[in-house]
Amino acid sequence: MESFSQRLHEIQKRKQSLLCIGLDVDPRKAPEKFRNSPAGLLEFNRKIIEATSDLVCAYKPNLAFYEALGECGWKLLHETLKYIPRTVLTIGDGKRNDIGNTAERYATSLFDDFGFDAVTINPYMGFDSVEPFLQRTDRGVFLLALTSNAGSKDFQRLKVGATPLYLKVVKKAVKWNTHDNVGLVVGATHPTELRAVRRIAKSLPILIPGVGAQGGDLASAVQNGCARTGDLAIINISRSVLYASTEENFADAARAEAIKVRDSIRSILSK
Amino acid sequence: MESFSQRLHEIQKRKQSLLCIGLDVDPRKAPEKFRNSPAGLLEFNRKIIEATSDLVCAYKPNLAFYEALGECGWKLLHETLKYIPRTVLTIGDGKRNDIGNTAERYATSLFDDFGFDAVTINPYMGFDSVEPFLQRTDRGVFLLALTSNAGSKDFQRLKVGATPLYLKVVKKAVKWNTHDNVGLVVGATHPTELRAVRRIAKSLPILIPGVGAQGGDLASAVQNGCARTGDLAIINISRSVLYASTEENFADAARAEAIKVRDSIRSILSK
Repeated sequence: MESFSQRLHEIQKRKQSLLCIGLDVDPRKAPEKFRNSPAGLLEFNRKIIEATSDLVCAYKPNLAFYEALGECGWKLLHETLKYIPRTVLTIGDGKRNDIGNTAERYATSLFDDFGFDAVTINPYMGFDSVEPFLQRTDRGVFLLALTSNAGSKDFQRLKVGATPLYLKVVKKAVKWNTHDNVGLVVGATHPTELRAVRRIAKSLPILIPGVGAQGGDLASAVQNGCARTGDLAIINISRSVLYASTEENFADAARAEAIKVRDSIRSILSK
Repeated sequence: MESFSQRLHEIQKRKQSLLCIGLDVDPRKAPEKFRNSPAGLLEFNRKIIEATSDLVCAYKPNLAFYEALGECGWKLLHETLKYIPRTVLTIGDGKRNDIGNTAERYATSLFDDFGFDAVTINPYMGFDSVEPFLQRTDRGVFLLALTSNAGSKDFQRLKVGATPLYLKVVKKAVKWNTHDNVGLVVGATHPTELRAVRRIAKSLPILIPGVGAQGGDLASAVQNGCARTGDLAIINISRSVLYASTEENFADAARAEAIKVRDSIRSILSK
């Protein structure tokens, strides 16, 4: 059986795309005609997916945006996932984590109920809290290493001996990667550190948020994030694609923006 | 307006109880007649709540157990919360965390949609990821410090200079407690470390899981976890109360077990 990393690599190669779109539905930002009902938001998501699914290697819905809508948000996420073609990976961005028997319940929710191909996991609670996800050998597990926000300095950058904590996480991730299904999350807002992570995690997928609205630079994210052996950097863009326009033409505008980013990445890679 | 800590302290004083019941619904463990439908599980929760609400200071549903049931689990949690009297605090145990604008969505979900009085939060992403919760000054925010599981050694116990990471979290928690609404999570499986946490976090509520099924000792949890100024230790018990019996008498058995633990805590405190 193909491993998660192999599957990602193949999709990226076939589509020549490292682009991931963050499906962070937000009624406050969606075009007016869609924002007032769950059915409208589903329609919005469907149109975004139809306009962009040939351009991306993955979609990454952040669960917070769905949960904030209450019960109907949970349903909206289930319905949205049905529109995503199987040729595109789905990453459930919930940053979940808990003790073993509870983490196993989250794995059931994310991998079986939602059917995500991969998830993001907060590593703070250690191995036995990550293991129930790792054991799903056909699914990907992206551990938060160095996140894109300012607060990443509070704990992630603290030095344990000579090594910052986030590199301790990276080293564990490499060690835990016995099924070729572990990845990392590193914000594009930390280009130098991203390079350091890639030096240690030579062949792990790295999910890179923070380009665009958060100020990360695309070129350095691509250059520092890609593996020698293949690409395996996943560049996530959310707001600038989803809300490229709030007019009637929002889907075309999202497509145009997605093409622009995908092609910028291609051009950076070809240099 | 009363702060979260004051409210907790008052409830603990009035009920003379530090007991919290973890409402971790599990169809594999519930009595047979309730396990096969969401309505059955709701009925199970309702009967547990009716049998124990006069004995506890808080209920703590772990969201993983509800999410694992899919869409109907989300609804089950909403419905369950309606049965909890306002004289008992509700702690949404989801260990959520994300960057600021996303964390704010989780705060909306947990505090507004579900209406939890408090939540558990994973601190790994730092201040701006915790701030949206802290800003809800009438609600409690329990930061994971040293969790009850074996994996807590992987990162939480790493030494930053002379200080283990979990104490760095504790120190930040004290600093961030400007609204008297910050608490900590420390597993009963680490009695010595719990004492060290209490020395630093003199007046913060500490939620203490891990007594019972996970092997933590009740007496040392109570002795080391309580504050000099009042109690503020919350002793969480899940499985041993919820599934005290799988027979017809499960609610009575749960009540008996809850009384036993509550009274053991009282007796430890009176020594």
